[in-house]
Amino acid sequence: MTEYLLKLDFKKSIGLIPVIVQDAKSKEVLMLAYANEEALEKTLTTGYAHYWSRSRKKLWMKGETSGHKQKIIKILTDCDYDSLLYVVNQKGPACHTNKYTCFHNKLKG
Amino acid sequence: MTEYLLKLDFKKSIGLIPVIVQDAKSKEVLMLAYANEEALEKTLTTGYAHYWSRSRKKLWMKGETSGHKQKIIKILTDCDYDSLLYVVNQKGPACHTNKYTCFHNKLKG
Repeated sequence: MTEYLLKLDFKKSIGLIPVIVQDAKSKEVLMLAYANEEALEKTLTTGYAHYWSRSRKKLWMKGETSGHKQKIIKILTDCDYDSLLYVVNQKGPACHTNKYTCFHNKLKG
Repeated sequence: MTEYLLKLDFKKSIGLIPVIVQDAKSKEVLMLAYANEEALEKTLTTGYAHYWSRSRKKLWMKGETSGHKQKIIKILTDCDYDSLLYVVNQKGPACHTNKYTCFHNKLKG
């Protein structure tokens, strides 16, 4: 675990790593967000998903105002250590539009 | 469909949009890659996943050398139009390490 933590490449995208969030039960992809080192650390220590908001330029815990928290079940990184996958138990809808997933706009298929 | 295509925000990350790739059958998350407008256009016209390689600075079709192509089943974008989800039929392993998914390094859980 620590081995992968040390390998994470935060430098590739100015200190941020994209985080894919997947529902542990349905396996649906819920959202994509970004983590800096502090957000990942908070996620690991609290067991709830934290991110870096690029627009508000601040650390946030998912659900801190809406209550729609994400309890961490599993965290994985990929083969080149530049992205993360949070597998979560999602409380309520993941999207701020109140939809279950942020990915609700179909381009094709 | 065209409506969402026009809304896609390629400017947020210097012309690139992160693409989450999910297996249509198992629903496992396979990889994260990046698309510029040309890569997305090629994906839409050919029906096979194309990306922009940040390291090689070129357009590539997944599987062009390995044969491990990704047939597009569905493409979605999220609530703020700055990321994409390709749902695919993956031929062979998705990862260059020959693992089924690129997300095979467990940090927690």
